[in-house]
Amino acid sequence: MQNVNAEIITIGDEILIGQVIDTNSAWIAHQLNDIGINVSQITSISDNKDHIINALDLAASSVDLILVTGGLGPTKDDITKQTIAEYFQTRLIRNEAVLDHIHHLLQLRGGQMNELNIHQADVPETCEVIPNNYGTAPCIWLEKPGKVFVFMPGVPFEMMGIVSDQLLQRFQQLYNTPAIVHKTLMLQGVAESQLALLIESWEIQLPSNIKLAYLPSPGILKLRLTAKGDTTEILSKMIAQEVQKVLPIIKDWYYGDNDEPLEITLAKLLKDNNKTMATAESCTGGKIASMITSVPGSSQYYNGTVVSYSNDVKTNVLGVNPDILASYGAVSQQTVELMAQRVRELMKSDYAIATSGIAGPDGGTPEKPVGTVWIAVASKKQVISRKYLFGDNRERNIIRSSITAMNELRKLILLDLKIVEKN
Amino acid sequence: MQNVNAEIITIGDEILIGQVIDTNSAWIAHQLNDIGINVSQITSISDNKDHIINALDLAASSVDLILVTGGLGPTKDDITKQTIAEYFQTRLIRNEAVLDHIHHLLQLRGGQMNELNIHQADVPETCEVIPNNYGTAPCIWLEKPGKVFVFMPGVPFEMMGIVSDQLLQRFQQLYNTPAIVHKTLMLQGVAESQLALLIESWEIQLPSNIKLAYLPSPGILKLRLTAKGDTTEILSKMIAQEVQKVLPIIKDWYYGDNDEPLEITLAKLLKDNNKTMATAESCTGGKIASMITSVPGSSQYYNGTVVSYSNDVKTNVLGVNPDILASYGAVSQQTVELMAQRVRELMKSDYAIATSGIAGPDGGTPEKPVGTVWIAVASKKQVISRKYLFGDNRERNIIRSSITAMNELRKLILLDLKIVEKN
Repeated sequence: MQNVNAEIITIGDEILIGQVIDTNSAWIAHQLNDIGINVSQITSISDNKDHIINALDLAASSVDLILVTGGLGPTKDDITKQTIAEYFQTRLIRNEAVLDHIHHLLQLRGGQMNELNIHQADVPETCEVIPNNYGTAPCIWLEKPGKVFVFMPGVPFEMMGIVSDQLLQRFQQLYNTPAIVHKTLMLQGVAESQLALLIESWEIQLPSNIKLAYLPSPGILKLRLTAKGDTTEILSKMIAQEVQKVLPIIKDWYYGDNDEPLEITLAKLLKDNNKTMATAESCTGGKIASMITSVPGSSQYYNGTVVSYSNDVKTNVLGVNPDILASYGAVSQQTVELMAQRVRELMKSDYAIATSGIAGPDGGTPEKPVGTVWIAVASKKQVISRKYLFGDNRERNIIRSSITAMNELRKLILLDLKIVEKN
Repeated sequence: MQNVNAEIITIGDEILIGQVIDTNSAWIAHQLNDIGINVSQITSISDNKDHIINALDLAASSVDLILVTGGLGPTKDDITKQTIAEYFQTRLIRNEAVLDHIHHLLQLRGGQMNELNIHQADVPETCEVIPNNYGTAPCIWLEKPGKVFVFMPGVPFEMMGIVSDQLLQRFQQLYNTPAIVHKTLMLQGVAESQLALLIESWEIQLPSNIKLAYLPSPGILKLRLTAKGDTTEILSKMIAQEVQKVLPIIKDWYYGDNDEPLEITLAKLLKDNNKTMATAESCTGGKIASMITSVPGSSQYYNGTVVSYSNDVKTNVLGVNPDILASYGAVSQQTVELMAQRVRELMKSDYAIATSGIAGPDGGTPEKPVGTVWIAVASKKQVISRKYLFGDNRERNIIRSSITAMNELRKLILLDLKIVEKN
């Protein structure tokens, strides 16, 4: 078992002037950690030759693996490649496979090859090129005795694609890292402090080689178990045992495992049972639709949404009774239930979600303060609705409402399926 | 005028395991930049004594100002203060003023003083304490010949309060820093490599104290000019002159300044002219609605969307002629134009956007490959539509389509306003 230390270096002035937050490094650190590689430093430096060489030298003097992002784009402010060639005492040569790939990608995008794109195919002569299936800048792998250097583009989705598809496997083969097993339990609708008290005695009795972390994000709380040891088989068994113990306590909020977003859980449930759904969104403004349709193949089970920001759309498009709107207001149980029922019929769907609330920062009243949100879910058999109070941040209100609504629909589908089973 | 270089060091394992994204450093970097202090490196290291001392040593060997965050909390894993005392060859002593402050703060919060809180009042004997009005951990200022070290708590709002209220002023008094002026031009619809060639000769003639950077993100390209010199007045004038020169070249893509997202530009344009809009989204699946409604007060000008994922919704809800759908298909000029016109009427709006395309990864054909997107924008006077080819990544296709569509609507509104002016 080998203890592997890594440093992540980010090149680019945009981080040093505070224009861009370095999200790449946290993501990479997370991935490396998952396969048992320890990240001992994250460094952001400028597009400056001496600075780059100095950072590479320092990193190589203390760690085994150096991952570099940024500085591989087509424009002049990127001097990384020339610097790399110099540092590795080699020269840049044109790589025909990369050139073909760039050509192909530009054709797909309807663009034209120019001088700058051609230069993207220049790589250090002694490097190995790791293909970038997500963009034009190649990923460059270089070695010095006992040290591995990987240079990646800084565009997040390109970098993520390269790391996920290719680099992690290579690192696992290269280093005999300790076995690590992670298990993340996804919870919706419970606060960190509330849960911590409930599972305190379970947390205390966890074996010393299992670590627990609470990872909260708006609407979702992840409970992450990490076991470290000799074999993944033993570790997986240990984790499964602990999960069995905690499940009865968390069952009301637990909906899935291992970072699965609710839109995927919902997608599986709908597809497996051959059901369809629609949404009618007011305060969530299309966020639910956007989350659901971010899943490839969602057209199989998702028919669409009506975002009714104006009351006129609620009555004319959705067909909500104007008297109900006038008597109870847009943010009311009566309106949100009608919205769910009407959009379900209108879009000929098995299920529907509706939201209506005051996202903020303005529009609140003493009776209905900012953060008041009504959510309804409907099936052919029933409509279930509930009022929530989410606080005063617009962005968080929208995301929490959207996630809560999807979870409510998940529960309704499970309820309906149970009723069908019983009959 | 003094050229001051700074390094920001963040201490804490949570960043190195990727559990937390380091947003503090970007924020600090931005503030320092605004007062003319250059950040040459951002470093994240673990809660480890040797690592901390090594990082401080390295920073002091290359910069004038070292700002450290993290590692000052009350719990055991924070060994920063002991390490600082050792590094500055001093000892920790209890500071009575800090102790009083902690006591006062805990009383306000209804908490009780415990052993851990008391230790927060221990500071290096030779330091100056900068009061933390936002929390219990004190901010520590220490000097070595020609070098300033500031140790701050890592809790973002405490750190931000200390920097804004006290540190920035002190730095400006301490260093006679150069003036810096930034200007960011926001471009939509042009690729980095395409633009770089077009503005090459302008870029070459830029004065040596003005730096240019390209900052691409899906659908948007930011062009950032940074000028350094004696007074902000002169620099602002210099930048304004250079912007005037480049505007004729970039006018087709330029829509705004200084990181303004298109949904804000569009919001201003609609509100200023007292106009409303609606959307009919197919491939963008509610993303446009979600972006537009992320803006507070959007209900003033945004009526809603119909996301028509199924053809049935296109015909039944939007009222697109089924014969058109059958003859030309959902992803066609005819369909997308009808969608825009129908939703504009249906939602009684002045303007409308419609999208229909193949977001991928499946559903492509040789004639209509994945990434084919039709976008239409409509006003009472006209409908303008265009076909795009965005590539094979679903997430990027959706965001690029959404941003492009908003920009097309912006252009249509400007065109309509011009026609009105002429008449």
